[in-house]
Amino acid sequence: MIKLTEITRTAEEMAKEHREVSVSEFFERNRHLLGYDNPTKALATVVKELVDNSLDACESARILPRIWVEVKQNTADKFNVMTKDNGPGIIDKQIPFTMGKLLYGSKFFKLAQSRGQQGIGASGAVLYAQLTTGKPTTVISSTGNGKTSYYELMIDVKKNEPQILNHKLIEDGKEWHGLKVEMEIEGRFIENKQSVVEYVKQIAIANPYAEITFEGPNGKIEFPRGASVLPPMPKEIKPHPHGIELGILRRMLESTNSRTVLSFMTNDFSRVGRNSGEEICKLAGIDPNISPKRLTVEDSDKLFKAMHKVQLMRPPTDCLSPLGEDLLLKGLQKEIKAEFFAAVTRPPSVYRGNPFTIECGIAYGGELPQDQNGDLLRFANRVPLLYQAGDCAITKSVTATDWKRYGLQQSGKALPTGPVVVMVHMASVWVPFVSESKQAVASYPDIIKEIKLGLQEVGRKLQYHISGKRKAEMQKKRREIFERYIPEVAGALGKLTDTKPEPILIKLQDMIKKKGMKEIEGNEEKT
Amino acid sequence: MIKLTEITRTAEEMAKEHREVSVSEFFERNRHLLGYDNPTKALATVVKELVDNSLDACESARILPRIWVEVKQNTADKFNVMTKDNGPGIIDKQIPFTMGKLLYGSKFFKLAQSRGQQGIGASGAVLYAQLTTGKPTTVISSTGNGKTSYYELMIDVKKNEPQILNHKLIEDGKEWHGLKVEMEIEGRFIENKQSVVEYVKQIAIANPYAEITFEGPNGKIEFPRGASVLPPMPKEIKPHPHGIELGILRRMLESTNSRTVLSFMTNDFSRVGRNSGEEICKLAGIDPNISPKRLTVEDSDKLFKAMHKVQLMRPPTDCLSPLGEDLLLKGLQKEIKAEFFAAVTRPPSVYRGNPFTIECGIAYGGELPQDQNGDLLRFANRVPLLYQAGDCAITKSVTATDWKRYGLQQSGKALPTGPVVVMVHMASVWVPFVSESKQAVASYPDIIKEIKLGLQEVGRKLQYHISGKRKAEMQKKRREIFERYIPEVAGALGKLTDTKPEPILIKLQDMIKKKGMKEIEGNEEKT
Repeated sequence: MIKLTEITRTAEEMAKEHREVSVSEFFERNRHLLGYDNPTKALATVVKELVDNSLDACESARILPRIWVEVKQNTADKFNVMTKDNGPGIIDKQIPFTMGKLLYGSKFFKLAQSRGQQGIGASGAVLYAQLTTGKPTTVISSTGNGKTSYYELMIDVKKNEPQILNHKLIEDGKEWHGLKVEMEIEGRFIENKQSVVEYVKQIAIANPYAEITFEGPNGKIEFPRGASVLPPMPKEIKPHPHGIELGILRRMLESTNSRTVLSFMTNDFSRVGRNSGEEICKLAGIDPNISPKRLTVEDSDKLFKAMHKVQLMRPPTDCLSPLGEDLLLKGLQKEIKAEFFAAVTRPPSVYRGNPFTIECGIAYGGELPQDQNGDLLRFANRVPLLYQAGDCAITKSVTATDWKRYGLQQSGKALPTGPVVVMVHMASVWVPFVSESKQAVASYPDIIKEIKLGLQEVGRKLQYHISGKRKAEMQKKRREIFERYIPEVAGALGKLTDTKPEPILIKLQDMIKKKGMKEIEGNEEKT
Repeated sequence: MIKLTEITRTAEEMAKEHREVSVSEFFERNRHLLGYDNPTKALATVVKELVDNSLDACESARILPRIWVEVKQNTADKFNVMTKDNGPGIIDKQIPFTMGKLLYGSKFFKLAQSRGQQGIGASGAVLYAQLTTGKPTTVISSTGNGKTSYYELMIDVKKNEPQILNHKLIEDGKEWHGLKVEMEIEGRFIENKQSVVEYVKQIAIANPYAEITFEGPNGKIEFPRGASVLPPMPKEIKPHPHGIELGILRRMLESTNSRTVLSFMTNDFSRVGRNSGEEICKLAGIDPNISPKRLTVEDSDKLFKAMHKVQLMRPPTDCLSPLGEDLLLKGLQKEIKAEFFAAVTRPPSVYRGNPFTIECGIAYGGELPQDQNGDLLRFANRVPLLYQAGDCAITKSVTATDWKRYGLQQSGKALPTGPVVVMVHMASVWVPFVSESKQAVASYPDIIKEIKLGLQEVGRKLQYHISGKRKAEMQKKRREIFERYIPEVAGALGKLTDTKPEPILIKLQDMIKKKGMKEIEGNEEKT
C-alpha cells in the first residue's frame, strides 16, 4: 500500500472547487471546435449553419427552397447577418429551445440523412453572436397559421437555457410561413475560396432546386434554380445489427417495448427477420421468448457477439437521398463555365453499419483557368465543406487518384492541374466528421474506396472527351498541312494525267471537307 | 412576404420530435472527438487520461508522483487497464461525479496551468469502457483518513449522471492515500510510435520527478525518477483585459461582487491598477464610481473597447510552471541514449491574453539511429501529444526551421534527418488544442514564433557541438597522416643534421601527443 506523505492540499479542499460545466460554457470556451476560430471563417460558419437549417426544414416539408441571405458591414469588424426562408417555420413555444439551447433537436435521434445532426448549429451561431457583440438574436417565424412569432433571445450560458429578452405573438392574419433570423457578429469579409460567397455558390451547386439571393457588401448575387424537383425524401431507418456497439445495445434492451428477445431483434433493428432473429438467439444461447429485461450483462454480451456473426442483408438504402446524376449535372452546369461535364452516382455502400452513397462530378475546359491546380468541391449531405481539406477522406481520395491516366496533368500526390473542377458528394445517415465544425470526412477505408471508384468513373468519361478532343485536333492539323499542299498536288496530278489542274484541286478540297465532317461526327457520337 | 405553398409536414409535427441531447449521448456518438476512433489509439487514450489526472492530483497536493499502470489482455480485443497513484485521493461523495459525469471538474474554471482542462478525460474513459465492453469501472480511493472508498460505476448516458452499481466506504484504518481505477475496454496492443508504451515513455521524459511502473502484455518496464523536486506550483490568475471577449465581460459584470466599475476593473482582472482602471473608464466615458450592474449593453461595449485600447502590463507569468532547463535535460538524459543534450526555456509570452512558455530540448548522436528522420516529441503542459502531428503548431515550427544551418541534414520542409530527437513543450493556462482529443496545438502566430526562437537556440548549441566534433575529427585525421610520415621525416632530419633519427622520432611523437591533447581540451571548453 502507498504510504502517507505530507499532503499540502487535501482532497477536501480540492473537492470544493468542483462543479458542472454547462455545454454552452464548454463550447463558448472552445468555440474553434464549432468553426469560429477566426473572423472570416466565423462569418461563413454563421451563414452555413442558418442556411443548412433552412434547407433541411424546406426539404422535410417538401417545399422548393427560396432563401435570402444578407451580410451587411456595420463597423470594421462587425457584421449583420440575416437569413430568411420559405420553410414550414417553427412553432412559437419551440423557437427559444431550437435557437437558444445547445444540443437540442430532433436530428440526433433519427437515422435519416439530413444536413444537421447534432443540434448545435443555429444555437452555436447565437452563442457566437452574443460572445463577440453582446447582442441578442432576432427570430421571426410563422407556420402559416396567420400568426407571426417575434423573439429576441440569447443563451443563458451557465445553464445552457434560452434567455428571452422580448417575445410577441402577433395575430396579423398574414399568409406566410418561414423563418427569418438576424444577428450581429464579429467577422471579416473577404472574397476568396473559403469565403461566405464561395460557400453560397457551392450551396447553389449542390442544391440546384433552391433559389438563393445573396446580398453582401459588394452587391447582390442571384442563384436561380436549375431544377424544380426536390430529391426524394430520405426515410428514417432502424439501426443495423452490424453497426451497433455493445453499450448502445444495452441501452436499447433497457428501454425497448418489445416483449421477447426475438421481437426485440425483429422490431428494433433493420434487416432482422424471424429466421435471422432465431439464428442470432440460438448462436447466443438465449431463449428467444424471454423478456429482453431479463437478460444479464453476460447475455447481452453473447447477443452482441451473435448479432455480428450472423449473415444479414445490408441496411436498406431508402434512408439515403443522393442528388442523382441529373441534378448533379444541372448544379455544375448552372454555376461553372466549362465545356464538358460528367457525373456519376455510385450504388449505396456501408461503413460500420451506416449506409452511404458517393456521387462524383467533373467539369472541364471552357473558361476554367489553364495553368493552375484544379478545384475540388467537397460536399456532405449537400453541405459544402470549405475547411480542413487536408484531413478529409475526399481530398485524400482525389489526390491518391492517378489523373494522368485520364488525360490530366498531376504532380505527385496533388490535385490534377488544368481547367478542371472535381466534385464529390457523400450522402449518409451519419457522416463521420472529424470534428464538430463538420468540415472534413473521417478516413474510413470503405468510404475512400467508394470515392475512388466514383472518381475513376468520371475520370474515364473525361478521358474519352479529352482524347476525342486531342484526336480531332491532330486530324485537323494534318488536314491543314495537306490543304496547304493541295495546289501543288493538283498541279502534279494534272501533269501526270495530262488534264487541267483546277477540277482536280476542287475535287481534292471536297474530299477533305467530307472527311473532316465525318471525323467530327464520329467524335461526337463517342462522347 | 413569402406565399403559402402546400406543406406536407407541418411545423407542429416536426416540433414533436425535438428533445434535448445529453452531453454523454453526444460524445458517445462522437467518440472519435475524444480520441477513441480506433482500438490502438483508444488504449493509449484511456491510459493517458487516467495518468494525466493522477499527475495533476499529485502535483496539486505537492506529492512526488508514484504511478503504476497495468495493461492486461483478456481476449483478442479486450483489455484490462489499471492505474494507481499516491495522490491525495478523491473524497467519497465526489467520486461518482468526477468519474461518472462528463463536463464536471474544477480545472475548467481556473486560469492556471494543468493537464486536464475540460472535465471530460476520466469520465470519457468510463464512457468508452461501458460502450465497448458494457462493464462498469471500479474506483478505489482513500484520502488518508483511514477509510477506503470502493465504487463500481457507469454513466447514465441519457441523463449524463453517474450510475452507482456498488458502493462501500470501509473503515479499514489503513494509512494510505491515492486513487486506483480499473476498467475493461476494447483495444489493440501494438508497440509502435503511437502506442501506450511510447506514451508512458514520453510521460517519463516530461515528468522526470515521477516514478512510473508500466506492466504490459510484453512485460514490466520501470521508469525511475531522474529528479526529486517538483516544478513550482502554478498560481491561478485573473483574466487579462486584452484576452477577454465581450460576452464573457458581460457575464462577469452580471456576477461580480465589486461595487463600482473601477473596483470591478482592479479586482476582477490582472494588471489593472487604479490608474489604468480610471483611464479605461475615462476612455469609455463611464463614471468609475457607479455599480457594474447599472451598465447598459452599450456601456459594456464601450468598456470592452476601452479595455483593449489602454496599454497594460502583460499578464503575470507565475501561473505558468515550465519544467526548466535542468528538469528538461534530466528527462531527456534518463530516457534517451545520446551523446549530446541541450535544452532551453524561453521567457513567457502571450497569445490572445493567455500567458505561455515554450521549452525546447534536443538530443544528438550516441545510440540514436543514423539514416532516418529524427524524432519529434511534442508536449503540452507536460502531456505527450502522439496524434495529429500534421495539424500541430509544434510540427509546423520544427519543419519550417532550417536545420542545415545547425549541421543537420534536412530534405525540404521535413523533420531533420540523422541521430536527433527534438522536444518541444508548451506550458500555458489555456493550451489552444485543435480538438477535444487534445493532440495538436492550434497555429497561433505568437506561438509559432516562440517555438521557432526556442528551436534556433537549441539548434545553435547543437551546431557548436557538431562543428566542434567535426573539427576534432579533421584534426585527428591530419595528425594520423602526419604520424605515418614521422619515421621518414625523422630519417630525413637525421641525415640533414647528421644525428641519429631515433631521438628525433620520439620528440616528434611527443609533440603530436601534446598538440592533440590541447585541441581536445580546447573543444571541450567550448561545448
